[in-house]
Amino acid sequence: MSARSCLTVVLAAGEGTRMRSSRPKVLHAIAGRPLVGHVLAAVQATGSRVAVVVGPNADAVTAAVTAQVPDAAVFIQAERRGTAHAVLAARAALEAGADDILVAFADTPLIRPETLAALRAPLAAGAAVSVLGFRPADPTGYGRLVTTGDDLVAIREEKDASAGEKAIRLCNAGLMGISGAHALALLDRIDANNAKGEFYLTDVVELARKAGLRAVVTEAADDSEVLGVNTQAQLAEVGAVLQQRLRTALLDAGVTMAAPETVHLAWDTRIARDVTIEPYVVFGTGVSVAEGAVIRAFSHLEGATVGPGATVGPYARLRPGAVLERDVHIGNFVEIKAATVEAGAKANHLTYIGDARIGAKANIGAGTITCNYDGILKHKTDIGAGAFIGSNSSLVAPVKIGDGAYVGSGSVITADVPADGLAVARGKQSVKEGWAARWRAVMAAKKAAAKKKS
Amino acid sequence: MSARSCLTVVLAAGEGTRMRSSRPKVLHAIAGRPLVGHVLAAVQATGSRVAVVVGPNADAVTAAVTAQVPDAAVFIQAERRGTAHAVLAARAALEAGADDILVAFADTPLIRPETLAALRAPLAAGAAVSVLGFRPADPTGYGRLVTTGDDLVAIREEKDASAGEKAIRLCNAGLMGISGAHALALLDRIDANNAKGEFYLTDVVELARKAGLRAVVTEAADDSEVLGVNTQAQLAEVGAVLQQRLRTALLDAGVTMAAPETVHLAWDTRIARDVTIEPYVVFGTGVSVAEGAVIRAFSHLEGATVGPGATVGPYARLRPGAVLERDVHIGNFVEIKAATVEAGAKANHLTYIGDARIGAKANIGAGTITCNYDGILKHKTDIGAGAFIGSNSSLVAPVKIGDGAYVGSGSVITADVPADGLAVARGKQSVKEGWAARWRAVMAAKKAAAKKKS
Amino acid sequence: MSARSCLTVVLAAGEGTRMRSSRPKVLHAIAGRPLVGHVLAAVQATGSRVAVVVGPNADAVTAAVTAQVPDAAVFIQAERRGTAHAVLAARAALEAGADDILVAFADTPLIRPETLAALRAPLAAGAAVSVLGFRPADPTGYGRLVTTGDDLVAIREEKDASAGEKAIRLCNAGLMGISGAHALALLDRIDANNAKGEFYLTDVVELARKAGLRAVVTEAADDSEVLGVNTQAQLAEVGAVLQQRLRTALLDAGVTMAAPETVHLAWDTRIARDVTIEPYVVFGTGVSVAEGAVIRAFSHLEGATVGPGATVGPYARLRPGAVLERDVHIGNFVEIKAATVEAGAKANHLTYIGDARIGAKANIGAGTITCNYDGILKHKTDIGAGAFIGSNSSLVAPVKIGDGAYVGSGSVITADVPADGLAVARGKQSVKEGWAARWRAVMAAKKAAAKKKS
Repeated sequence: MSARSCLTVVLAAGEGTRMRSSRPKVLHAIAGRPLVGHVLAAVQATGSRVAVVVGPNADAVTAAVTAQVPDAAVFIQAERRGTAHAVLAARAALEAGADDILVAFADTPLIRPETLAALRAPLAAGAAVSVLGFRPADPTGYGRLVTTGDDLVAIREEKDASAGEKAIRLCNAGLMGISGAHALALLDRIDANNAKGEFYLTDVVELARKAGLRAVVTEAADDSEVLGVNTQAQLAEVGAVLQQRLRTALLDAGVTMAAPETVHLAWDTRIARDVTIEPYVVFGTGVSVAEGAVIRAFSHLEGATVGPGATVGPYARLRPGAVLERDVHIGNFVEIKAATVEAGAKANHLTYIGDARIGAKANIGAGTITCNYDGILKHKTDIGAGAFIGSNSSLVAPVKIGDGAYVGSGSVITADVPADGLAVARGKQSVKEGWAARWRAVMAAKKAAAKKKS
Repeated sequence: MSARSCLTVVLAAGEGTRMRSSRPKVLHAIAGRPLVGHVLAAVQATGSRVAVVVGPNADAVTAAVTAQVPDAAVFIQAERRGTAHAVLAARAALEAGADDILVAFADTPLIRPETLAALRAPLAAGAAVSVLGFRPADPTGYGRLVTTGDDLVAIREEKDASAGEKAIRLCNAGLMGISGAHALALLDRIDANNAKGEFYLTDVVELARKAGLRAVVTEAADDSEVLGVNTQAQLAEVGAVLQQRLRTALLDAGVTMAAPETVHLAWDTRIARDVTIEPYVVFGTGVSVAEGAVIRAFSHLEGATVGPGATVGPYARLRPGAVLERDVHIGNFVEIKAATVEAGAKANHLTYIGDARIGAKANIGAGTITCNYDGILKHKTDIGAGAFIGSNSSLVAPVKIGDGAYVGSGSVITADVPADGLAVARGKQSVKEGWAARWRAVMAAKKAAAKKKS
Repeated sequence: MSARSCLTVVLAAGEGTRMRSSRPKVLHAIAGRPLVGHVLAAVQATGSRVAVVVGPNADAVTAAVTAQVPDAAVFIQAERRGTAHAVLAARAALEAGADDILVAFADTPLIRPETLAALRAPLAAGAAVSVLGFRPADPTGYGRLVTTGDDLVAIREEKDASAGEKAIRLCNAGLMGISGAHALALLDRIDANNAKGEFYLTDVVELARKAGLRAVVTEAADDSEVLGVNTQAQLAEVGAVLQQRLRTALLDAGVTMAAPETVHLAWDTRIARDVTIEPYVVFGTGVSVAEGAVIRAFSHLEGATVGPGATVGPYARLRPGAVLERDVHIGNFVEIKAATVEAGAKANHLTYIGDARIGAKANIGAGTITCNYDGILKHKTDIGAGAFIGSNSSLVAPVKIGDGAYVGSGSVITADVPADGLAVARGKQSVKEGWAARWRAVMAAKKAAAKKKS
């Protein structure tokens, strides 16, 4: 981090009408985090103070911002009159001052801290304005960065560009650094004497030069960093780029994925080396997986902790509060929620474990259900170490199964079972010989009669 | 639609041997609809009458055609003697007459109504023949469209093309419009004086010109429209293009998909704005999803209706006749078939609901099974509003659970439960202290003895 | 196969540190088989003898090699001193002699038998050395093959290459054939007089030429064949190429896959024509699927045999030993392990079948569990032809259900059921009228009281 102080103004006031969604655009999420949250995280990583400019009626955005950055200053831009007008909505923060002022966009979520830092570097070296540039494959539609030597002369919008300027490949990414010493004076000089009657932040370049100050271009290392989101398709696109980044980081760290493109990660997914992840695994937020674990195909994890050597899936669903200790096995069509499964325990088939502790090396049979909800309250199930729960049992919580206890298959357990004891709770089997043959004959006759009638 | 009448002859007689499938090629499906069905839908959207030419022994094709377009005229091409011969199999329809005659192909399923209309436009303007052209990245193997000014002079097959003609990028897509006034006369003039002894539709261009009539090219807006299917790989390819079209339409309409490329849609899938679809969701035909619903990962829906604000999945399977009303929650490893789940009801874990009504705000516990089939007949389960079905219960249909009734966990319910009543049906729990410890000791001894023997 | 004898030395001694994995690199798998296994299979397909050079402490690699190729000679390269040094670790095998010596790499798994054979062809025609060449899109970093006419003059490493040599597109793929008559003599002449002090196999080219022998280049038909694996990302990449090969082979053979890119295959997956595979299906090793079967979405198969006309899934998991005969239906959230399901039987919902036989046309109700494990031993369940197992039943093995027998829903069956008999084993239903309403009132009062307190 630079020794210079910094304030980053994050513009989050756009309406996002092209999303065709009632959710504010910047609260749409990629990798489990809202767009604005990715930008805030990048800004925080640079050590900058944060001001966020939101639109009117943006309580949800404000709430999301302050939940993530409690000391962020949030400003409301009551009318939408252009980017410079938006930045000036944060006037109080600008007046408080900082060596460097950055302007970032809440809908440009892939920006990296390194790039924000690079954008500030020329300010420390005396430039008044530092504009982030990039070189898109097709520059059509972007503002062109007109330069002379190392100096940025102007940002020319497509419609105002001469043929020669249109040939320029270096385009305006939108992000900008302004020297704190000059920021307010320059911003206040921007006028709305244009077709749309808006105040354009890009005008700051020419105003700086008129004032004898220097403007420069900082090029983004990676064009994907400046991708903006205006439509659902672009939301998916930036999400895909971020997934690619996250997957690459895991591969580089020694995670084995047969088909990395089929593994969907959250921004905070932590996977240790020598973990194997099979195809079609979805990670929600808050998951960590320890060394040597195997996450099999079609698994879905959220808010879960997977211990070393554990095996999860295929078709396992781990929900928040699932904690699997070392060498646990969770198998197919098994859901674990708010439960600790201690070392070496197994629940391999068609099981629901909620609000429970499963002791070490316990074996939970196929089809076991912890009946944790009575319609009003949730209750806990406690299963001791080495216990054996027979298949298709119902454990009606609150209930405690002692260490080494044995529950007979198909039992409905409503009372505690002592350690090393056996509990059985099922109906007695009765058999009627020949019944099925007779019943089939009766039913066949009925069917035939019904057919005759119709 | 044009005021001119139109007859479209859809050629569906190809053998499709390269598919290596016993299913007729044009009945292979993409997005849940047979290839021929996509073509018929495009033709119908233009308001054209439809004639379909099928091969011998193509009853299944005929049945599919008439199921979709009851007044389609179906003709059998007994021998396969070329495209013109196939068109003339529909002679009776051609003789009935129309202002415009179009020839389309049942194995070219991505053609759009707009393109069919564009193909007809030159006929209205006086041309006798209008050929659909496209510009493939690599024209090798395609017939080249030889033009003079705006006129189409000939369709030259690759093998007959001069070096100069091979350099032509504009190729024959196969689809053709012919003026109704000239169609039969031109088609009847085509001969089989060529190496294969077949009657080629493409000859109509030169015959028209010889007769002093005009032939023109109409370019396809999008090359993918003219993709044909001859192999399983091509079937998958056109399927992928169609999926891309369907996904883009949803994104444009305000549907949120984190990974749209992992969502598989049917041709008739209807998704409202502000629906969120997580990765890995498969839609069969007949699904509609209302505003604000969330379809979570790994869900599979066919013939289902999802109400506003409902949550489905992960791992939910909705089968035909599943109707979820407003704010319903259907969770993991839950299957719903031929059942209405009323507003606010929940079935969140490992449940089978078939042939049932679930009343509003009812709670269906984990592992609940509606036992709807007695081996011969299916029966209905009716669960009242606000009822609570304890986990791992079996509801043996026909059975009625009253409003607000409560079923104890693990019960097998065989008789109706009155409103606000409690029903419990399970075995009594018995406990044998120390049994498990003794049993393990006995088994361990047995194992040791067995080991000694071997 | 050639009449000439061949020995292939497979180098498997690389450390693979860039994988950041505790597993030896060549034991990382693609399509269900370790990298080295793919190379061994290709070598064996050419009829060559096999020698494998492993590093120290490579017992797991040796075990994998000898499990697949029992008569492979395995040599340990104690120190890693370059490729020629590694080949000479197999000196005993080289001394035993062969007409042709091939050098292959255990981390280059996509090499085809045809390419190995092509590499040998020049040896039969008198060349002493035959080097596999390929033309990467970007040759940077590869050794360039310097040629004169048809002769290979030298393999020039990037760092030693002149500007002219750097312009050469033809690069060294690493694989090499050496005439058996000259191999040892040439290899022994290689020295370590270079910066790293290693013995480079590539030196053999210049040594051969000095000895008046001929060296030539054999070009790989497909660049993907020479892809090597050094990182997790490259492992995923070669895995993706192999999946693409396997999928294409299935499509060509008449398998229908709507989205082939979502179907993950094992190296030994056998699928008959006219099988339909829906999106998101994962095949482990040892699976065969017969004609006309349908594998529905989200299914996972390992070690399973699927008979003609069977339907599997969606969400079916077939584990090793699952054998489905003709027209069997296995539905959603159903797991089958070590069980034969005879013709026409059905298990469609939320079921676990392990260690069992299901007779022809038997119907296994939703939620049925075979309780096959008593905590110490596994036991068998035998269900007769035409039997009907009511939903949510538990079959406590060992147990036998006779032909045509009927098990009532929700039963826990602990004793055999005679053919055509009825067995019911469940608790009696008791009802308390008004209980639920009273209970809710009590609970609501409690909740209110609790709220007041806090």
